[in-house]
Amino acid sequence: MSFKAINFEEKLAKFNEHWSPRVIAEMNDYQFKLVKVKGEFVWHDHPDTDEVFVVIEGTLDIEFRDGTVTINTGEMFVVPKGKEHKPVANSECKVMIIEPKDVVNTGDRNSELTAENDVWI
Amino acid sequence: MSFKAINFEEKLAKFNEHWSPRVIAEMNDYQFKLVKVKGEFVWHDHPDTDEVFVVIEGTLDIEFRDGTVTINTGEMFVVPKGKEHKPVANSECKVMIIEPKDVVNTGDRNSELTAENDVWI
Repeated sequence: MSFKAINFEEKLAKFNEHWSPRVIAEMNDYQFKLVKVKGEFVWHDHPDTDEVFVVIEGTLDIEFRDGTVTINTGEMFVVPKGKEHKPVANSECKVMIIEPKDVVNTGDRNSELTAENDVWI
Repeated sequence: MSFKAINFEEKLAKFNEHWSPRVIAEMNDYQFKLVKVKGEFVWHDHPDTDEVFVVIEGTLDIEFRDGTVTINTGEMFVVPKGKEHKPVANSECKVMIIEPKDVVNTGDRNSELTAENDVWI
């Protein structure tokens, strides 16, 4: 095994595309992904799993049908399984997502924003 | 549900004990825990699960029988399932641990450092 820690800033410097998660680590059957987001994502949900958002830099709003959460740098939020949500970032925001490794970014909603899964950096 | 993000700094201000993880969130059957560490922990392993360390502030070394990894602020590391390890921090370090919710901090090694499990803040 490698004895090198995974550096978020170093990994984030490797790509610029928005809404295109890159895998940086695996823990059991879960993956840690970094993603840069800007603008509005699509409404979707993940029927089989909760989804964690950790904001590394910036501000991410997650809209729900019944409210909105604002996640700033150094904060996290758990979107419950099956809860419809739409991430929105007014300025570019850098986020770590943690979820089971087969989860697609747009959930059950196929869209032009649906990203290829399991892309490592 | 609450529409409030979980703020690491705010949660870390709620306790001062070392090596005593506090749960801040749950994702499926996994927990996110904050812990303040200083000094040397005990050698142990977790035979059934990987374990993730994210350094929020400071520097954490994790010693293995065949090497050492240094994790700084803004970095993470996945300790593989069954791999014997000993966390060491020369100065106080603030860490987020992610692992299944029944995992005990000292693994199979009962010690005076064994902390009560599932303590939420």
